Amino acid sequence: MNYTTKTVTVRYSETDQMRFVHHSNYLKYFELARLEWISEMGISYAEMERDGILMPVVRAAIEYKLPLYFGDTFQVTVTLKQPPKVTLDFEYLIVNQNDELICSGFTQLAFLSPKTKRPMRCPDFVIEKFN
Amino acid sequence: MNYTTKTVTVRYSETDQMRFVHHSNYLKYFELARLEWISEMGISYAEMERDGILMPVVRAAIEYKLPLYFGDTFQVTVTLKQPPKVTLDFEYLIVNQNDELICSGFTQLAFLSPKTKRPMRCPDFVIEKFN
Amino acid sequence: MNYTTKTVTVRYSETDQMRFVHHSNYLKYFELARLEWISEMGISYAEMERDGILMPVVRAAIEYKLPLYFGDTFQVTVTLKQPPKVTLDFEYLIVNQNDELICSGFTQLAFLSPKTKRPMRCPDFVIEKFN
Amino acid sequence: MNYTTKTVTVRYSETDQMRFVHHSNYLKYFELARLEWISEMGISYAEMERDGILMPVVRAAIEYKLPLYFGDTFQVTVTLKQPPKVTLDFEYLIVNQNDELICSGFTQLAFLSPKTKRPMRCPDFVIEKFN
Repeated sequence: MNYTTKTVTVRYSETDQMRFVHHSNYLKYFELARLEWISEMGISYAEMERDGILMPVVRAAIEYKLPLYFGDTFQVTVTLKQPPKVTLDFEYLIVNQNDELICSGFTQLAFLSPKTKRPMRCPDFVIEKFN
Repeated sequence: MNYTTKTVTVRYSETDQMRFVHHSNYLKYFELARLEWISEMGISYAEMERDGILMPVVRAAIEYKLPLYFGDTFQVTVTLKQPPKVTLDFEYLIVNQNDELICSGFTQLAFLSPKTKRPMRCPDFVIEKFN
Repeated sequence: MNYTTKTVTVRYSETDQMRFVHHSNYLKYFELARLEWISEMGISYAEMERDGILMPVVRAAIEYKLPLYFGDTFQVTVTLKQPPKVTLDFEYLIVNQNDELICSGFTQLAFLSPKTKRPMRCPDFVIEKFN
Repeated sequence: MNYTTKTVTVRYSETDQMRFVHHSNYLKYFELARLEWISEMGISYAEMERDGILMPVVRAAIEYKLPLYFGDTFQVTVTLKQPPKVTLDFEYLIVNQNDELICSGFTQLAFLSPKTKRPMRCPDFVIEKFN
């Protein structure tokens, strides 16, 4: 099960003085990929948060293969690694306009209960959407 | 009435491929200056927000004189331009480790009421602190 | 003379704890608008920089009318205020998916000579493109 | 072999609408920790870059234990995991003002040759400093 984002253009403000996209931005690219996917599924993340459900990242890993430069465009492919239970485990691949693999990554998201702010099971309507 | 921040060190992630600190970061430096000042005055901005009072920036202006580079350190001097009423008007000067003027700026902040999310007068306890 | 960007989606990472897009991000939105325009004109900003021409922002002003929220989309309209000489003067309007005016702004860009790093006249090929 | 940074204060602009520090900022905190360490050792990273040596992050991993909030302060402890060879491997711990463990992480940095932009061995003067 996976989703590939629309094409994203590197922003000037995302570069650093090495001329590369700063390595912290990849976590933002991963985030926009999973939220674009969730949105395409018809889940309103904004509403989910208004209901008090928080979905923080609890674990992340990135392997940087090639830099992205200003002017580059790219797409992120996000894959759900296993059926959602207490966490949502996503894998990511970023590929640039020349079909070069820029980086791969992984994030694990937890669900926090509106009341207790403690970890809770993935809400049923999210599980359904991913099935 | 003014306040000068502790010395701040430019972060690598704040540079862009021109090797300059990206111009959007100066608004973050202004913000840290006014919040450091407010905190030194004994006002808890975090508490104020928990009480529902929001203080968004409604107007900003910046004049960039010289770039900041990675490795530079700087201080921000923030001045309250006039007694607080419906807005808080601050002016800023950023000076680097060689006493060079890096930039000057201005921001205007409004107070939004917890209930209506409409502009409200500056809360009395804030006015008192600035007097 | 003006240009309206493709639709941009607010990123989660651009919000702050007020739930608004952090006010420093608007300078990044302005930047992506003028660079998208320049790119659409057939000017390669990346090449220009490789030729050593730098185009830093020397002045900026923003008026914030309404906040942008996560989940919003928007477009930036950028207008060249006067024929380019020693500076490029742009005005901006950001409008959200409901045609509400989010903010207006202004930036002035200078051209720095590759050799002297001192201000220089706008290169002829840029002037031509804007005519 | 390790180093603990000066106390860092969370910036308002680093929060997101969950009220937590956005998870991408931890990579910036790790970076400022290793660069502060390198600077304390007497290595000028800025000079190293002017000599053409680049030190990109090629691998990163983070485990988020507790959120950081606006108003929090923290310190980063960075440890060199093994003698530098073709990579510099650092581990990180972030601890807040209440001595709570906020997150742990790892980054691997490579050295790129000024001429070939290909991986090279860690320069001798860096190895010496770390011994």
